[in-house]
Amino acid sequence: MSKYLFGIDLGGTTTKCGLFTENGELLEKWEIPTETADKGVNIPTDIAETVLSKMAQIGAHNEDVLGIGMGLPGPVYADGTVGSAPNLGWGRFNIVETMTALTGLHVAAGNDANTAALGEFWKGGGKGSKSAVFVTLGTGVGGGIVIDGKVVSGAIGCGGEIGHMVIEPDETESCGCGGHGHLEQYASATGVVRLAKKELEASDEESEIRGGENLTAKQVWTAAKNGDPLALRVVDSFGRYLAYALGNIASIVDPEIFIIGGGMSNAGEFLLDQVKKHYGKNLFFPLREKKFALAEFGNDAGIFGAAKLLLTSLE
Amino acid sequence: MSKYLFGIDLGGTTTKCGLFTENGELLEKWEIPTETADKGVNIPTDIAETVLSKMAQIGAHNEDVLGIGMGLPGPVYADGTVGSAPNLGWGRFNIVETMTALTGLHVAAGNDANTAALGEFWKGGGKGSKSAVFVTLGTGVGGGIVIDGKVVSGAIGCGGEIGHMVIEPDETESCGCGGHGHLEQYASATGVVRLAKKELEASDEESEIRGGENLTAKQVWTAAKNGDPLALRVVDSFGRYLAYALGNIASIVDPEIFIIGGGMSNAGEFLLDQVKKHYGKNLFFPLREKKFALAEFGNDAGIFGAAKLLLTSLE
Repeated sequence: MSKYLFGIDLGGTTTKCGLFTENGELLEKWEIPTETADKGVNIPTDIAETVLSKMAQIGAHNEDVLGIGMGLPGPVYADGTVGSAPNLGWGRFNIVETMTALTGLHVAAGNDANTAALGEFWKGGGKGSKSAVFVTLGTGVGGGIVIDGKVVSGAIGCGGEIGHMVIEPDETESCGCGGHGHLEQYASATGVVRLAKKELEASDEESEIRGGENLTAKQVWTAAKNGDPLALRVVDSFGRYLAYALGNIASIVDPEIFIIGGGMSNAGEFLLDQVKKHYGKNLFFPLREKKFALAEFGNDAGIFGAAKLLLTSLE
Repeated sequence: MSKYLFGIDLGGTTTKCGLFTENGELLEKWEIPTETADKGVNIPTDIAETVLSKMAQIGAHNEDVLGIGMGLPGPVYADGTVGSAPNLGWGRFNIVETMTALTGLHVAAGNDANTAALGEFWKGGGKGSKSAVFVTLGTGVGGGIVIDGKVVSGAIGCGGEIGHMVIEPDETESCGCGGHGHLEQYASATGVVRLAKKELEASDEESEIRGGENLTAKQVWTAAKNGDPLALRVVDSFGRYLAYALGNIASIVDPEIFIIGGGMSNAGEFLLDQVKKHYGKNLFFPLREKKFALAEFGNDAGIFGAAKLLLTSLE
């Protein structure tokens, strides 16, 4: 009989849960609220309860379940220790030991951006690839590097922090992290709005994104798709910056494919086109041709990746 | 009884050979000339002969030998195919199948820069680490990324091509590869001479490196160590460029240590100091502290890494 496993994606508001077969088929998914009160002390118990109650519901015993994979918003070290996860209220503790004690099951945990990368690599935009670089374009820019089916989590949990690559060393404005000239300042939704505001301030040129109060990245993309010249210059800059960073990533890990996800990737193929038209410029020639794909899973990448993380930890 | 293995490092002039125990102890090393005539057609036979004659000499049979690891100057794909290796005269063929047919032994092959990285990681400057980025500063800039004991060779054999990271997108002069603004143009021995010539042309400032006919990187480093202000500015620029590239590498793979080798690394700790003083600037704060080490093996890194490559292929 095929065994079961759980993929859990912890967010600051809700925790997404998936019940999978060992072949990676998603049987059922559901959500529970993430109780961040009291420094998130109840979160592990809540997850254990939902897992154990699902097992009771389907009549599964511990020997029928391979374990629980978890993605969470913070660095996770090789021994299962969470560095800190402010969005959950958590300080430093060993989440793997805690969850194992609560459930008696095998547990594997990793950073949520890396886990999402693994999900997209395994069953989404990167399906069938041996290596992939996953980029999430949201409020920030996150990423995950997958080589031979494994996430490069890094010596201190900072593998795939591509949003913090320095691409404009002379930038005077600060990244959210305190650094300067980071990719996130140009290629996130926030970054696109920032670039658009600069364009708007630089001239009186008419544009459909001029005059609104709370400009959003979505408005910029819509205007660009409508052919608005100012918005087109903004998304061209976005594409140039992201392509530059991806080119340097290629020179380091030479992935089979780049997968672009996150909220802003809803702009779709038009967004990919802005990146692809700049990608390869100045690069070492064998690296000038790379595959690009949009992420396919949206919010489900995390539970798929958590499931894959568990499977990998059992190899 | 401990078994034997061979580590072979193919260069355009000589082929370095090492006989190892399976624990990685180097028992003996020797060289044979690399016969690049006739498109290097005799190279595989020559290597097979030296391996088989060494086995006869020590009374070892095929069952006493784990196999042959090889590093060579060209891309090597997962199936053992060499893309091309112009320095050996080779076009595309399967070196692993060829060598296995000639010797009856298990064979593993990889790119020489990656193999050298593996050697330094395993038994040299990176000994005891779980991950490392190896940078060779020679005529060009090469590199190798080692994660969890394995080289990141890349989808098309271009993993660790850090010399071709674009760090000055507006550079007008060309890299040897035809690209522009590559790290190699600033941080190789050739690059340091180029930076020095620019400094010399920019003013009439006195300097001990002024006036010679064939300026070398070694002269620049010696002058800088002597306190020559112009040479100091050159090596400071070198350090700033290399530190910038290494910072972005850290944001991608977050290695435990950077190992600096290649001919120019003979400038020693003084060279490391030029890099370390700039490293971390503008970076995401957890990545601002990284270990740096000089390579320890010099020319022997290749045979050690080839031996490790063979051992890894048997896991």
